[in-house]
Amino acid sequence: MKKLINQPEDFVRESLEGMAAAHSHLIQVHFEPTFVCRQDVPLVNKVAIISGGGSGHEPMHTGFVGMGMLDAACPGEVFTSPTPDQMLAATQKVDGGAGVLYIVKNYSGDVMNFEMALEMARCEGIRVRNIVIDDDVAVKDSLYTQGRRGVGTTVLAEKICGAAAERGYPLDKLVELCRRVNLNGRSMGLALTSCIVPVRATPTFTLGDREMEVGIGIHGEPGRQRLPLKSANEIAEMLTLSILEDSGYTRIMREWDEVQEGWIDIEATDFPFQPGSNILVFVNGMGGTPISELYIIYRRVAQICSQHGLKIVRNLIGSYITSLEMEGCSVTLLQVDDEMMDLWDAPVHTPTWRWGV
Amino acid sequence: MKKLINQPEDFVRESLEGMAAAHSHLIQVHFEPTFVCRQDVPLVNKVAIISGGGSGHEPMHTGFVGMGMLDAACPGEVFTSPTPDQMLAATQKVDGGAGVLYIVKNYSGDVMNFEMALEMARCEGIRVRNIVIDDDVAVKDSLYTQGRRGVGTTVLAEKICGAAAERGYPLDKLVELCRRVNLNGRSMGLALTSCIVPVRATPTFTLGDREMEVGIGIHGEPGRQRLPLKSANEIAEMLTLSILEDSGYTRIMREWDEVQEGWIDIEATDFPFQPGSNILVFVNGMGGTPISELYIIYRRVAQICSQHGLKIVRNLIGSYITSLEMEGCSVTLLQVDDEMMDLWDAPVHTPTWRWGV
Repeated sequence: MKKLINQPEDFVRESLEGMAAAHSHLIQVHFEPTFVCRQDVPLVNKVAIISGGGSGHEPMHTGFVGMGMLDAACPGEVFTSPTPDQMLAATQKVDGGAGVLYIVKNYSGDVMNFEMALEMARCEGIRVRNIVIDDDVAVKDSLYTQGRRGVGTTVLAEKICGAAAERGYPLDKLVELCRRVNLNGRSMGLALTSCIVPVRATPTFTLGDREMEVGIGIHGEPGRQRLPLKSANEIAEMLTLSILEDSGYTRIMREWDEVQEGWIDIEATDFPFQPGSNILVFVNGMGGTPISELYIIYRRVAQICSQHGLKIVRNLIGSYITSLEMEGCSVTLLQVDDEMMDLWDAPVHTPTWRWGV
Repeated sequence: MKKLINQPEDFVRESLEGMAAAHSHLIQVHFEPTFVCRQDVPLVNKVAIISGGGSGHEPMHTGFVGMGMLDAACPGEVFTSPTPDQMLAATQKVDGGAGVLYIVKNYSGDVMNFEMALEMARCEGIRVRNIVIDDDVAVKDSLYTQGRRGVGTTVLAEKICGAAAERGYPLDKLVELCRRVNLNGRSMGLALTSCIVPVRATPTFTLGDREMEVGIGIHGEPGRQRLPLKSANEIAEMLTLSILEDSGYTRIMREWDEVQEGWIDIEATDFPFQPGSNILVFVNGMGGTPISELYIIYRRVAQICSQHGLKIVRNLIGSYITSLEMEGCSVTLLQVDDEMMDLWDAPVHTPTWRWGV
C-alpha cells in the first residue's frame, strides 16, 4: 500500500485537519463528533442542507461545504457510514430555525443513520426532511444497498439545492426540487483498478491486467459485469447507453411525511432524456484517473447525446465523487429545466468549488 | 496499460477535442498546428501570455486558457515539446499589438523551441519576450534540462501574470513581475508510482512496493534519491525543508533583450522565506493521488512553515501540474508581496480555474 498517509487509522482525522488549516475562512471542522460546517452558522432565514457518508470519496462531501452548497457534511471513517450523533450535532449547529434538508446517498448504513438523526432532531423541535439519492443504473440491489446506489447525481443535487437554499427556498420547495433532481439524474461507473482502504492495506478487489469492472460502486462493490478492457469510446458508449435505456424506471422513495409524522413510501416513474431534452453531462474521475482521460470520455459521451437528440447545456468534468485512488470514471446525465440551470450557475464558494465570488 | 483511451497515438488530439466540445464558450482548439487559445482573440490593448509544453501534465497548460490567465497554450505530444510552428501560430492568433510574454518551463526542448518561435515572431514584427521558470530544487541538471527544471511555480506565475495582463500591465512590467515570481518560488516533488506514456505502453521507471522517488521530475526523470517509503509527515518535511534550505540560490536566466536585440544572461541571487515572510503554499497532486492525501501533506507543510516563522496567506491544493496517472505530490512555496496576492485573488475563468465570475 503506497499512500501519502501517516498511521492508517489517522487518515480521516488528519485529512480533515489539513482542510481546517487550509480553509479556516470558509469552514469549521469539529471532532467528537466529527462534522464540517460553514463558518457563518447558525443560519438565520435559510434552510440548511446537510449531507455525509463514508470518507474516501473526497472532495464529496466535505469539499462542498460553504456558501451556495452544503451547510454541513458528516464524514464517517473510510467507506463507513457516519453515525447519527454526528448528524445530530451538525444539525444543531447549523439550524437557525428555517429547517434542515438531509441529502442522503442510498447506502443502507447512511439511510438508517440519517433517518435516526432526523427523528432525534425532530424530537428536539428542529424541522428536518430528507431526500435519498438513488441514481446508479448499474444494479438493482448491491452489497451495501437496498435499491439503487446513490452516486454522481448527489454532487449535482448538492450544487443545485445549495443554490436554492441560498436564495431562500423554504424547506418544502427545496425537498420538491431535490426529489426532481434525483428523478431526472442517472449514473453509471466503471473501474480499471481497485482502491485500497488504508486500515485494510490490501485491494478491495482484484482485476486482471486486461480487465475492467463495469457498473462498479463507489466502495469497490461489484458491478454489472467484469469484461475485457475496452477502448474509451466503447466505455463511454456502454455507460451512456445504459443510462439512456433506463428512462421509465419506477422507484420507491422513502421520505418523512410531516402531516402523518412518520415515514412514507412514494412511488414515481419518470421519463427523462427524450429527444429535445436539455441535459447536464457530468464525467467524473474515480480518484486515480487524470483529467486528460476524462476529456476523451466526454468527447464520445457528447457525440452520443447529440445522436440521441439531447442538448448538452452544462457540463462538469473532474474528480468530484471518488473512491480513494481508484482508476476509472462514471458518467452522470441530468435532465435540467430552466430553474435547475439557473441554480447551477449561481455563485458558490467552498474549499473545492468556487465561482461567481 | 489501463487507460481510458482509444488508440494511444490519438490521446492528445482526442483529449483536446473533448475540451473543445466541453468549453467552446471559453476556448478555441486548433489543429495543424495544434494550439488552444481563448475565444476573444486577437486581444486589443492587452499583452498576451502564452505557455506550453509536452502533454500529460493536464490541466496545465490547456486548462488554464481563458480570462485572467493564459491567452494560448501549445500542447506537444505526451512529454514532448511542442514545436516552434505551434507557438508562432498561437502568437499570430492572439497578439493584437500589445506584445506577447512566453512563460516557459525549463526543459531543454521547450526552451529551444520557444526561443526559435520568439525570434520568428519578432521577425514578423510581433513584440515577444520570455521568462523561463526554473524552480525545482531537487537537482541541478536533469535528464531533459540544463539547470533546474520548471515545475509548480509555473502554475502560480500563470495565474498571477495572467491577472496582471488582464489589468493592462505593459509587457516590460509583466516580464519583471514574472521574473520576480520565479525568483521567489521553489518546488520539489516525489513519486510513489510511475506513469505510463500511452504510445510506450510500459512504465517510465520502476519502483519497488516499498520505495519512493524523491525529487522526481514531471516526466518521471530521476530525482535526488530513491528511498524506502516514508510517512506523509516525513515526506512533507523532506520536501518543505529542501525548499527552505534553498534560499540564497544563484541562478542565471536567459532572456531576450530588446535593446541589444539578442539573448542575454541575467544572474540573480534571492533570499525568500525569511521569518516573517508571507507565502503561498501549493500542494500539488501528480495525477493519481486523491485530494484527501494532499490535505494530509498540507497539514504538515503548514506546521513546518509556522515553525519557521512563515505566514501562509494563500494556498492551492489539488492536481494542477501532473504526470499522467503518477501517484505522488509536489510542494511549491512562493513568497508573495501585496501585488502578487492582489493579482492571485483577481477573477479568472478557464476550463479548470474559475472564480470571481
